[in-house]
Amino acid sequence: MNDSRFTPVDPVDLTARLVRCPSVTPVEGGALTLLTELLEPAGFECTRVDRNGTPNLFARWGRKGANRTFGFNGHTDVVPVGDAAAWTHDPFGGEIAEGYLWGRGATDMKSGVAAFAAAAVDFVRATPPDGAVVLTITGDEEGPSKDGTIALLDWMRTKGEAMSVCLVGEPTCPDRMGEMMKIGRRGSMSVTFQAQGVQGHSAYPHRARNPLHALVRLLDRLASEPLDHGTDHFDASTLAITTIDTGNSATNVIPARAMARVNIRFNDAHSSASIAQSLRDEADRVTAETGVTFELQVDVSGESFLTPPGDFVRLVTGAVTAETGVEPVLSTSGGTSDARFVKDHCPVVEFGLVGRTMHQVDERVSVDQIRQLKSIYSRILADYFA
Amino acid sequence: MNDSRFTPVDPVDLTARLVRCPSVTPVEGGALTLLTELLEPAGFECTRVDRNGTPNLFARWGRKGANRTFGFNGHTDVVPVGDAAAWTHDPFGGEIAEGYLWGRGATDMKSGVAAFAAAAVDFVRATPPDGAVVLTITGDEEGPSKDGTIALLDWMRTKGEAMSVCLVGEPTCPDRMGEMMKIGRRGSMSVTFQAQGVQGHSAYPHRARNPLHALVRLLDRLASEPLDHGTDHFDASTLAITTIDTGNSATNVIPARAMARVNIRFNDAHSSASIAQSLRDEADRVTAETGVTFELQVDVSGESFLTPPGDFVRLVTGAVTAETGVEPVLSTSGGTSDARFVKDHCPVVEFGLVGRTMHQVDERVSVDQIRQLKSIYSRILADYFA
Repeated sequence: MNDSRFTPVDPVDLTARLVRCPSVTPVEGGALTLLTELLEPAGFECTRVDRNGTPNLFARWGRKGANRTFGFNGHTDVVPVGDAAAWTHDPFGGEIAEGYLWGRGATDMKSGVAAFAAAAVDFVRATPPDGAVVLTITGDEEGPSKDGTIALLDWMRTKGEAMSVCLVGEPTCPDRMGEMMKIGRRGSMSVTFQAQGVQGHSAYPHRARNPLHALVRLLDRLASEPLDHGTDHFDASTLAITTIDTGNSATNVIPARAMARVNIRFNDAHSSASIAQSLRDEADRVTAETGVTFELQVDVSGESFLTPPGDFVRLVTGAVTAETGVEPVLSTSGGTSDARFVKDHCPVVEFGLVGRTMHQVDERVSVDQIRQLKSIYSRILADYFA
Repeated sequence: MNDSRFTPVDPVDLTARLVRCPSVTPVEGGALTLLTELLEPAGFECTRVDRNGTPNLFARWGRKGANRTFGFNGHTDVVPVGDAAAWTHDPFGGEIAEGYLWGRGATDMKSGVAAFAAAAVDFVRATPPDGAVVLTITGDEEGPSKDGTIALLDWMRTKGEAMSVCLVGEPTCPDRMGEMMKIGRRGSMSVTFQAQGVQGHSAYPHRARNPLHALVRLLDRLASEPLDHGTDHFDASTLAITTIDTGNSATNVIPARAMARVNIRFNDAHSSASIAQSLRDEADRVTAETGVTFELQVDVSGESFLTPPGDFVRLVTGAVTAETGVEPVLSTSGGTSDARFVKDHCPVVEFGLVGRTMHQVDERVSVDQIRQLKSIYSRILADYFA
């Protein structure tokens, strides 16, 4: 407000305009164009970094390669509306009613993008920092995520672009504004077991080799032995059997094959490779006991990571506490986010508003929280460049 | 041959004529009519005991309620021909070539029916016994078997008809004529488990209740603990998991329900009820440990039974040894047969020829074996009434 030459960006209005862009993954829907039209006049150099049809936006204010470059990361794509008739407000209307802004993406995470874009524009205009501010915004976080934030980071590497630190604006608070930030995430992987035995008649099991007997033994062992008991900043890793399928309707036939899939969320005591190896070892033991062989297919959706508490984490917790009166818990819980890609680039944390209605019908966000979030992001920028 | 008034029945020709009746379950195909036309002139009182469209034939020579009544049991229905083009002889042609009679039902078990019918007719004509000979022949042993031998036995009970002992003419020899007879059978049952847990997100397994974790624990216990170690005349009971199905393709979802089915072949140390109870007990223990509940559906296809070695068994082994030079092993192995119904009526054993090609393409029977089988049955009748 010291600089009377410009009007601050209203993050509520910006969120509403973003919600009106029907940007269901992988459609751009006008969302990145809208942001570009806001950022360029404020001095941001904007580049569309689309890859394989996925729209992405890179925006930098300040000099490339600046010693201190603060980065934000977010996404403008949204999940489908689901049962459109069940919504009480147009999911792409951006309507404001009862203190809420309604619509698909209202919490996840057009409000987050609007809050950091508004904070960044106001900040560089009001108090141009000695450094750079970078926004990396993708149009595919909700989909396969193969050409989203990864494409932005790949492009940045080839162009010599960098962030010193990065804040992902995803919703992080379970119930109350300010109560939680994420300083890491568990890794996530799925492993499919194909058990191969020898078919036979149920009346003569000794002439067959039942893949299901071996499979239940293996799975019971995997489900019964804890992977660990938690680490300093992480809960214990978990393993969940998600499906077992055989498709054998004949009661007098022992099938030749059966499959099972497990999903594993693992902390920083493991890598996906170390877990895959221990699963293979356990499968080999069961093969030695039963003769049934196992083929494993490993799908890694992300490794675990941790940004250990330090200056950057303190900066964010301090700003959150100052603006909300609540000291955020440092958490590593939850599913995955694009922070799993950013962590290979620079220290990354996540902080955003309450995400309770994300992906639901009648997704909505408190307009007060959007304003509060902009204030927090503004304070983080100010403190970072202070 | 002492009585010159009649020509002995040729069991090979009778088998061929039966094979020419296309009696795929539940079609009569002329088979029971053909037998009636043979039996009635020889003094057998024949009654069709059809139930719900299933054709059955009851035939008695001699007085109802005779002190000594020898029974035979068999079936004239056959399984479908399968790939008709793959047969080298017409499956319903009853052709004789290379010493074999070819066709569907040649071994299972039109040759058996022909052999005992021929033996019975010749025997009552040549040496009318002081007693009765009863033939119970069904048109549904290969199908659901709900209105076949069961219907015959039900009808006999209401009519005051009875057999003192019964011989089932199913093929019983694995490779060599005479080597095996059956004095009992294991019971067979299938049990379907429906595991009910609480659905949830794979990332938060503690908030869900995974039915698959409970199911693999239960199944591993069931598969690992032997039901018994065999009894005097039986191998150990067996349990085979035949299928586990969930149908959950989402890796991030813990399903609410899962099912598994086991097939159990059990000896005379158990009844289906005692096994069902022990499965329920084991399931209850897992429920106490996990909170996952199990619904059990029990399908009993037959209880185990044994005709302990004694006069009747000795009579049959003696006749087999005398005619073949081979002393038959007393076995309780194999699948089920209608003996599982007859055993509630009177002592029952099974003896027949080599069944190697049963249910296969190019099913065939050695014509010499048919003649040998008739000789064995004739000797059994003679010895029984001696």
